[in-house]
Amino acid sequence: MTTAQKEAHRVVIVGAGFGGLETVFGLAGAPVQITLVDRRNHHLFQPLLYQVATASLATSEIAWPIRYLVRARPDVTTLFANVTGVDAGQKRVLLDDGDALPYDTLVLATGARHAYFGHDEWEPFAPGLKTLEDATTLRRRILVAFERAERETDPARLAALLTFVIIGAGPTGVEMAGTIADLAKDTLAPDFRNIDTRKARVVLVEAGPRVLAGFPEDLSAYAQRSLEEIGVEVVLGQPVTECSADGVMFGGNWLDAKTIIWAAGVRASPAAEWLGVPADRAGRLEVLPDLTVPGHPDIFAVGDTVVIADANGKPVPGIAPAAKQQGRYVAALINARLNGRTLPPFRYKHAGSLAQIGKRKAVIDFGRIKLRGNLAWWIWGIAHIYFLIGLRNRLSVALSWLWIHARDQRAARLITQGSSKVVW
Amino acid sequence: MTTAQKEAHRVVIVGAGFGGLETVFGLAGAPVQITLVDRRNHHLFQPLLYQVATASLATSEIAWPIRYLVRARPDVTTLFANVTGVDAGQKRVLLDDGDALPYDTLVLATGARHAYFGHDEWEPFAPGLKTLEDATTLRRRILVAFERAERETDPARLAALLTFVIIGAGPTGVEMAGTIADLAKDTLAPDFRNIDTRKARVVLVEAGPRVLAGFPEDLSAYAQRSLEEIGVEVVLGQPVTECSADGVMFGGNWLDAKTIIWAAGVRASPAAEWLGVPADRAGRLEVLPDLTVPGHPDIFAVGDTVVIADANGKPVPGIAPAAKQQGRYVAALINARLNGRTLPPFRYKHAGSLAQIGKRKAVIDFGRIKLRGNLAWWIWGIAHIYFLIGLRNRLSVALSWLWIHARDQRAARLITQGSSKVVW
Repeated sequence: MTTAQKEAHRVVIVGAGFGGLETVFGLAGAPVQITLVDRRNHHLFQPLLYQVATASLATSEIAWPIRYLVRARPDVTTLFANVTGVDAGQKRVLLDDGDALPYDTLVLATGARHAYFGHDEWEPFAPGLKTLEDATTLRRRILVAFERAERETDPARLAALLTFVIIGAGPTGVEMAGTIADLAKDTLAPDFRNIDTRKARVVLVEAGPRVLAGFPEDLSAYAQRSLEEIGVEVVLGQPVTECSADGVMFGGNWLDAKTIIWAAGVRASPAAEWLGVPADRAGRLEVLPDLTVPGHPDIFAVGDTVVIADANGKPVPGIAPAAKQQGRYVAALINARLNGRTLPPFRYKHAGSLAQIGKRKAVIDFGRIKLRGNLAWWIWGIAHIYFLIGLRNRLSVALSWLWIHARDQRAARLITQGSSKVVW
Repeated sequence: MTTAQKEAHRVVIVGAGFGGLETVFGLAGAPVQITLVDRRNHHLFQPLLYQVATASLATSEIAWPIRYLVRARPDVTTLFANVTGVDAGQKRVLLDDGDALPYDTLVLATGARHAYFGHDEWEPFAPGLKTLEDATTLRRRILVAFERAERETDPARLAALLTFVIIGAGPTGVEMAGTIADLAKDTLAPDFRNIDTRKARVVLVEAGPRVLAGFPEDLSAYAQRSLEEIGVEVVLGQPVTECSADGVMFGGNWLDAKTIIWAAGVRASPAAEWLGVPADRAGRLEVLPDLTVPGHPDIFAVGDTVVIADANGKPVPGIAPAAKQQGRYVAALINARLNGRTLPPFRYKHAGSLAQIGKRKAVIDFGRIKLRGNLAWWIWGIAHIYFLIGLRNRLSVALSWLWIHARDQRAARLITQGSSKVVW
């Protein structure tokens, strides 16, 4: 800590996801000294993470070094470190190496992990999708299943290798199922000799009554029809009751499957535990209307690690625009407080929901306007490229998508972090 | 195996590097049934691997799924499998899962790994660079060193974190040293607050009397001068005698360094052991002038796993063009034999040697023509883009290089496969 840092109002922001980063951006020009801490060195564009898992995009196309993103901001120090707790009494963030970061204002933007709700033992068999490593792990498992199938002669084992089960039919599950179906049907088919990859089974299993439960019913029905058209088997109303290295059980039936993907739920980071404050069943911190933590007016929490109601009393969804709005609000409120003012409570404005279904379709719910099909897919694609950071990544993703759509060629079909030996 | 495969002449090719792949390409149209086996699912453009290790390129920009590269060739079956040996008596390649691949002609193109020549215990401290995982491991170590330095307050530990030692001043060592210097001086400098990355020490240690020993002396001298101009410390004639997690010993002196990179030597794959035939000190198979293995006229070996003399009695260098020429020769000889003919012995034609030195310089030795400096760098860059496979990767690499040179921004500064915790 330099002397200059000690004089300014110290803001510590934990987590450089959408919420944390937006707080930093919103504090530009404010008389504060910011420390941005993350246990990763990169900000991740999670909405496209499933495209890394399905070999469509490279890791570097959707991730940026955090300190690069704030390089022009001398008021921001980026730390690559693991936070282990908060000492709210002494106003310090505790790091795993014994260091502590003093703060005047703390912003917790620590996100969520996928969660198995009492079945943590399923994680090795049904990995989820939250980090770049999750994505390259899933990519490896999907690609290795096809490689193994190419050499398998036993029909039962072959069927299990060519069966892909996705658990959970929210946006991530729908997008994974659709893209794996495309991968099997278009990209991989000409490359194999002994198997017909087009015969791979992609099974999307959902405990609830419909896919994309957050969308209007007609868009859910359209999404289901579109998935079925590209060969995805949609199973509704059947919770998974068992998961192993060999398959899954749902609706009382066992399905042999070597690749199982978990898209059924998330659990918040331990931010609520750090502070010893109330959390909901998913571990999300119950913040006050100004996004402060109850009893801690100098601690804010934003994004997937919190639960808060919108104007209609419904929970604000765990999506990037919500986290960004919260980050912007917190930055504005910190600014206001430094000027001796305050702000009315946070109000979430829902801009819309989007989900891609397979290669050339999407559904979009803008509230009054609902879109589906090819036009929705174009808007989906343009919106996602727009929200990427920097011209280089925009060009690179556009180039990758061009190749996928024009030539069915996916650039990132790499099995790494393990030779052919290291799976199963 | 289908019936059709049993009827044709069966060629098994082990390894889909430059040599193996070129053999496949050369056999297009031949009345053969090819099985291409590799323990990786991707062909790797090794000449640019150091750019992945230094965050300049993404893994998918220099690697292609093998079966994608031969998708238009129904005569080629690609297998993702580990070869454990060759049963030359029964003419079968043995796989680690107990399977065996019968062959009429076998081509061993199994490459080389970096080697420590009696000091295997150095590997954890001084990783080398041969695979994509090697490259992402080095990238992680280099980037984590700067991250750790940003938080270090002890001057001695800080100096060790900002000292990068590259052992071996062949092309890989020179290219790594130059690029790390650029990374520290240009790309990273604006992103850090507590350290001045431009003060990082990059030390290139070579046991022999000059850098780039395979090049003419004037180009070696130029390369050394150019490295020194961008701040690389070049140490010649001093073999490394000790390596640990804390540094290296050379010339009787100890240097504290947290990042050590091994570029001092390679060892051939165990192909010679599989066959029980003579090998040189580096494990390279001593093939006959027609690239067959002594005593095994139906087994060829090509690329880095063999040693053979050129027309001047000098060993053919372990570079991509040499492996490709050998692959093409083997394909032609297999073709000739199937037509009851033979071919004169293999003759290596040396097209030239190239090495990049830092961001905008290179040396090129075309024999009669020698080039250095900026023009050489342009030729180096164009040649490497030309030799990449496919328009997409060419565009993508060109885009990445444009950003590096116009904006000092390296796209792939990602620390993956391990959180901030997992190093040291």
